[in-house]
Amino acid sequence: MSTDRPDLADNILRAYLSDNAVGASPEILAAVVAAGAGVAAPYGEDPLSAGVADRLSIAFEHPVDVFPVATGSAANGIALAALTPPWGAVLCHPDAHIANDEAGAPEFFTNGAKLVPVDGANGKIDPDLLREAATRRRGDIHSVQPAVLSITQATETGSVYSIDELSALTTIARDAGLRVHMDGARFANALVALGATPAEMTWMLGVDVVSFGATKNGAMTADAVVSFDPALATELAFRHKRAGQLTSKMRFQTAQLAAYLADGLWLRNAARANEMARRLRDGFAVTPGVEVLGDDAIGEATANIVFCRFPEELSTDLRDRGFDFYAGRWERGVVRLVTSFAHTERDIDALLTATREALRSRAVAV
Amino acid sequence: MSTDRPDLADNILRAYLSDNAVGASPEILAAVVAAGAGVAAPYGEDPLSAGVADRLSIAFEHPVDVFPVATGSAANGIALAALTPPWGAVLCHPDAHIANDEAGAPEFFTNGAKLVPVDGANGKIDPDLLREAATRRRGDIHSVQPAVLSITQATETGSVYSIDELSALTTIARDAGLRVHMDGARFANALVALGATPAEMTWMLGVDVVSFGATKNGAMTADAVVSFDPALATELAFRHKRAGQLTSKMRFQTAQLAAYLADGLWLRNAARANEMARRLRDGFAVTPGVEVLGDDAIGEATANIVFCRFPEELSTDLRDRGFDFYAGRWERGVVRLVTSFAHTERDIDALLTATREALRSRAVAV
Amino acid sequence: MSTDRPDLADNILRAYLSDNAVGASPEILAAVVAAGAGVAAPYGEDPLSAGVADRLSIAFEHPVDVFPVATGSAANGIALAALTPPWGAVLCHPDAHIANDEAGAPEFFTNGAKLVPVDGANGKIDPDLLREAATRRRGDIHSVQPAVLSITQATETGSVYSIDELSALTTIARDAGLRVHMDGARFANALVALGATPAEMTWMLGVDVVSFGATKNGAMTADAVVSFDPALATELAFRHKRAGQLTSKMRFQTAQLAAYLADGLWLRNAARANEMARRLRDGFAVTPGVEVLGDDAIGEATANIVFCRFPEELSTDLRDRGFDFYAGRWERGVVRLVTSFAHTERDIDALLTATREALRSRAVAV
Amino acid sequence: MSTDRPDLADNILRAYLSDNAVGASPEILAAVVAAGAGVAAPYGEDPLSAGVADRLSIAFEHPVDVFPVATGSAANGIALAALTPPWGAVLCHPDAHIANDEAGAPEFFTNGAKLVPVDGANGKIDPDLLREAATRRRGDIHSVQPAVLSITQATETGSVYSIDELSALTTIARDAGLRVHMDGARFANALVALGATPAEMTWMLGVDVVSFGATKNGAMTADAVVSFDPALATELAFRHKRAGQLTSKMRFQTAQLAAYLADGLWLRNAARANEMARRLRDGFAVTPGVEVLGDDAIGEATANIVFCRFPEELSTDLRDRGFDFYAGRWERGVVRLVTSFAHTERDIDALLTATREALRSRAVAV
Repeated sequence: MSTDRPDLADNILRAYLSDNAVGASPEILAAVVAAGAGVAAPYGEDPLSAGVADRLSIAFEHPVDVFPVATGSAANGIALAALTPPWGAVLCHPDAHIANDEAGAPEFFTNGAKLVPVDGANGKIDPDLLREAATRRRGDIHSVQPAVLSITQATETGSVYSIDELSALTTIARDAGLRVHMDGARFANALVALGATPAEMTWMLGVDVVSFGATKNGAMTADAVVSFDPALATELAFRHKRAGQLTSKMRFQTAQLAAYLADGLWLRNAARANEMARRLRDGFAVTPGVEVLGDDAIGEATANIVFCRFPEELSTDLRDRGFDFYAGRWERGVVRLVTSFAHTERDIDALLTATREALRSRAVAV
Repeated sequence: MSTDRPDLADNILRAYLSDNAVGASPEILAAVVAAGAGVAAPYGEDPLSAGVADRLSIAFEHPVDVFPVATGSAANGIALAALTPPWGAVLCHPDAHIANDEAGAPEFFTNGAKLVPVDGANGKIDPDLLREAATRRRGDIHSVQPAVLSITQATETGSVYSIDELSALTTIARDAGLRVHMDGARFANALVALGATPAEMTWMLGVDVVSFGATKNGAMTADAVVSFDPALATELAFRHKRAGQLTSKMRFQTAQLAAYLADGLWLRNAARANEMARRLRDGFAVTPGVEVLGDDAIGEATANIVFCRFPEELSTDLRDRGFDFYAGRWERGVVRLVTSFAHTERDIDALLTATREALRSRAVAV
Repeated sequence: MSTDRPDLADNILRAYLSDNAVGASPEILAAVVAAGAGVAAPYGEDPLSAGVADRLSIAFEHPVDVFPVATGSAANGIALAALTPPWGAVLCHPDAHIANDEAGAPEFFTNGAKLVPVDGANGKIDPDLLREAATRRRGDIHSVQPAVLSITQATETGSVYSIDELSALTTIARDAGLRVHMDGARFANALVALGATPAEMTWMLGVDVVSFGATKNGAMTADAVVSFDPALATELAFRHKRAGQLTSKMRFQTAQLAAYLADGLWLRNAARANEMARRLRDGFAVTPGVEVLGDDAIGEATANIVFCRFPEELSTDLRDRGFDFYAGRWERGVVRLVTSFAHTERDIDALLTATREALRSRAVAV
Repeated sequence: MSTDRPDLADNILRAYLSDNAVGASPEILAAVVAAGAGVAAPYGEDPLSAGVADRLSIAFEHPVDVFPVATGSAANGIALAALTPPWGAVLCHPDAHIANDEAGAPEFFTNGAKLVPVDGANGKIDPDLLREAATRRRGDIHSVQPAVLSITQATETGSVYSIDELSALTTIARDAGLRVHMDGARFANALVALGATPAEMTWMLGVDVVSFGATKNGAMTADAVVSFDPALATELAFRHKRAGQLTSKMRFQTAQLAAYLADGLWLRNAARANEMARRLRDGFAVTPGVEVLGDDAIGEATANIVFCRFPEELSTDLRDRGFDFYAGRWERGVVRLVTSFAHTERDIDALLTATREALRSRAVAV
């Protein structure tokens, strides 16, 4: 992405609203075009689609069943519906996407299971609270029954559970007889932040099903349900079909996933996004007037999201300069900046420079 | 598509299994690549997505709400859920895709509405049977209540309802207080076959919502719910979201639809597919031993599907020659051949020649 | 019920519309009153409720799980939801109550499973048609999957499957991997008609769950889900609770069931109803102008429903004389008369006499 | 209930676990027996059932639609499903029965709507928190939409909203476009505590639908959905049927409701239960070592539930003496005692005496 970006006025990418606001990786677009040629069996019976399951099995060092979907919400909904009965409780962080940002999609897919919040600092579920929730009212016919632990990795705040933190949670869950789901909308960002293997971060800890995100990290419209439990395959397949997610020309989705996984593109893209976040954090850390928040601030692994506290006018000034990001959505004075595979050092430095200029102008003005 | 097709051994396309087995139109692939550049607001807030609603409003000569989806099943499920209460009956032909080929997706989306078959010749609902079904057990608390007429245009057999036939059905439905849904997986093929306008084939007859197919006719993975009733917009939007169909990088779907609609590509593609079917039919009609079935046989408008009766060995022989199509799936000796925008006269003639050769060899052998 | 019935003008019961139009057995009312005294643990934790499971286990010669419900529709819905996944097909006769008379309750309870009709003469599923349906499109991701056989015993027409007929169906179902449900709204009537034991008519044939009807045969508002498969117990319990069927003062339901099962009341009531139907049939058989229909006519076992063909005026004349029954609902000229535990020989003879008088008057008039 | 209670060893009722642990009022049992005689049209078409709607319309001074149900959970589920779309949020107190004690029944009935807790002291929703929640993320496609306010009157803690408190909440709800549901499992207890009319406590404040409880206050197994909005009647009727709540012999439920409403039985029973709670509270208030909690303690209106803080051993000692109640379920040291229509002054005094004796013994022992 160091190439020309003629659509950007001065070749500076100023979009920090979300990692879904930038386009797709050129490699992925090229793969889609290549997939467009010729004849292929529909509904995933084509070689490209079969190859993706193989690639993911190799990447995860475990046989997997793969179901491409158009959105992360679909992946989450299908996965959860296969893991919980309708009278089950899905334990998740109160900030989780499934709890907040899917307009009740999990409840629709699961026929009315209940999302039960389990709080914790920095967007991470607290193990002690989980321990209590995992057995709450077990066997009580008047209550939903704890059934699934859903972990978001990386979290909504950009923090990343360490392997030890994950292990603590999944151990509690398994001990209590719960299934484990991982919402991996930013799976690669977490992986790269930890320097772990896909296996270490999932099935080796007891994760049953991953919502494997690719869209935010360079794909167009392709995420996938990735399951480690062959006993779930039939149920997942029919839920996938009934949800209207089994595409006829599936090769156009699996071409994206194949290119995403080939030659380490997914890891390169994620590493780039994470590095840009770190560069931004490091720059803000030495910018008087800006306070970096979250795990970033305490030296823990983080992904491609930066939470800061800005003086009120700063957000306005930066937006006036064309930068786009959320301010005040979570808390007054708190801003969120999301970097992506498409950001360059030059882009980050432009934002840091603009920040300092804006702060200086205001200071002078006063 | 008269261009080189290097992936085809002798440059002959032998795929007649379904129109979803061929790739995408080059124009659509190019549009997707173009959409990949630069920044865009997610979840359909981008100009490309807004433009598609405008284009479709112009094409239909009526303001429409548009919800892009990954599959026709999703379009049908979302549309039907907005048109029927859970205790409603959806009246459709027994051969309808919603009744047979979606593994119960409509029941999932509608929270358990009932698909009630209304039979008729040539894949078309019989008006007299519809009249009876449209008021059956109306007001009887022990029975599901007729709520929606779902018409497939073009039908599963490739037949095409005339405007008069559609009008007869929609009049019966409206008189009985039913909403009208059109499953338009092959909408353009029907339109071109009739020489009608989109308006004439839909809202002018009382159609409320169309499942607007593009995938089978040249797009990659983009169909859409198109609604003429603004009162349904909010419900459709939330059902679309909860179904996991609201994509973050929606521009990659709407780029497909925009290119599909631009410069009449959709009509050109459909016309090509229909013409190729006609060429095939005309060729078979003068091939002793082959019997053409359906509306084709009686000179009615038809789309891009040809049903024939083949001598048993003929199917085997043609498959041996690399041709792919369904044989014996519906009835012993009956074959289905589906043409597409990607087929050329040369392709069709190759199939006809192969047919005659195969018949001749067998005759000689005997 | 041979006692005084002061509410009936001339002590003649003229109600043949349904067996749910008469009141409850005095023994059952007395048991409910007795249950009203004193304190009891709620939600089925009381001794009366525990006792019903024991009684049914003894009656069925098999350990059972029992879930009292307010209606047969609830029993059917809960049972089916535990036996089929949402993408399953429930195979049943087209006349089945679940298919026709529950306004889509099974679809609601199962989250959208599909009821697939399997036809057959006299209200009974045809084994050959079942054999075909039981494996239809097995493994095809585009289709619902055969999951449950639901048998109505006695059937909607009053016919009763013989043990051999049941065995033929359940063998086909088990061989195809289907679960078996029995809608026993008139279970006791069938049992008595066959002279079989509850075990012989259910689990010994492979039935998994019975909707055990008591209401039509003398109870007030108490039917029950009776399951022979302990693996279903937890799921049934939570579905029962979530459906709003777990009553706090359950003893008022289980008191009905206990009295129903005690001292053979259920069998006596059913025998009485069946005998009255036979008396009616025998009387009609020798009444010129009336044609008895169904299994009755061929000497097979039947329950407490009589289908006849009446001259048109006869229905009118009998209704004028205060008799209540369905006429012309299924077919022009066809009437249905349902007898119950509350009918006496005197009641039946009064109807036969009235029939002959009516026919004679008309004959004279002509 | 001052009559002999031969089932109670020394004629002392020691059951304070819940008001559903005692039997039914003699008047109601007698009505059920009377209903058992004679013939009646099924499914609520009988005069007794029609009469209940009339009686309730008179009691509420407003035309109402009435749907008898077997449980309060069914009433709540059916009512909420008619008031919220699946993507709606139902705002309720975190202690509400619908949120805690129905194993997800509301989610099942509503096809996955979300219960959103709105906290407040003494089991009552806080108006300021409601104001915020009632418009939270309105119009945001990624979030469930506030749709219904569900008020529990009397609350789970036995507190009773004053008319002014109710009015404050319903005004906020109506202003925000929300529908209003009242869970009236203890409706009569609240009514009597306030000295209000049914109209004043419901539709005059903007309540749309009430879950009208009778079971806890003397009926056997009969509650009802009572709707003030005729536009909801059809939907409620079909949801009631599909939930398996439309009983064939409905007269046995409506006989209970008719007797409950006749001659003020419902108000007498509730007044008795409330008075007994007050007597208990007054007695505890002057018992050193016992601390009365909740609205009781500040002189506000309360229903038939008493929350106290007991010395740990006291609970044990009273249970040893045969008294039954919840201790430590909500909080260590906190007990709940529920009185009912069946309790007498003598019963209450026996509990107070036992309490003092137990405390004295322990004091002496120390």
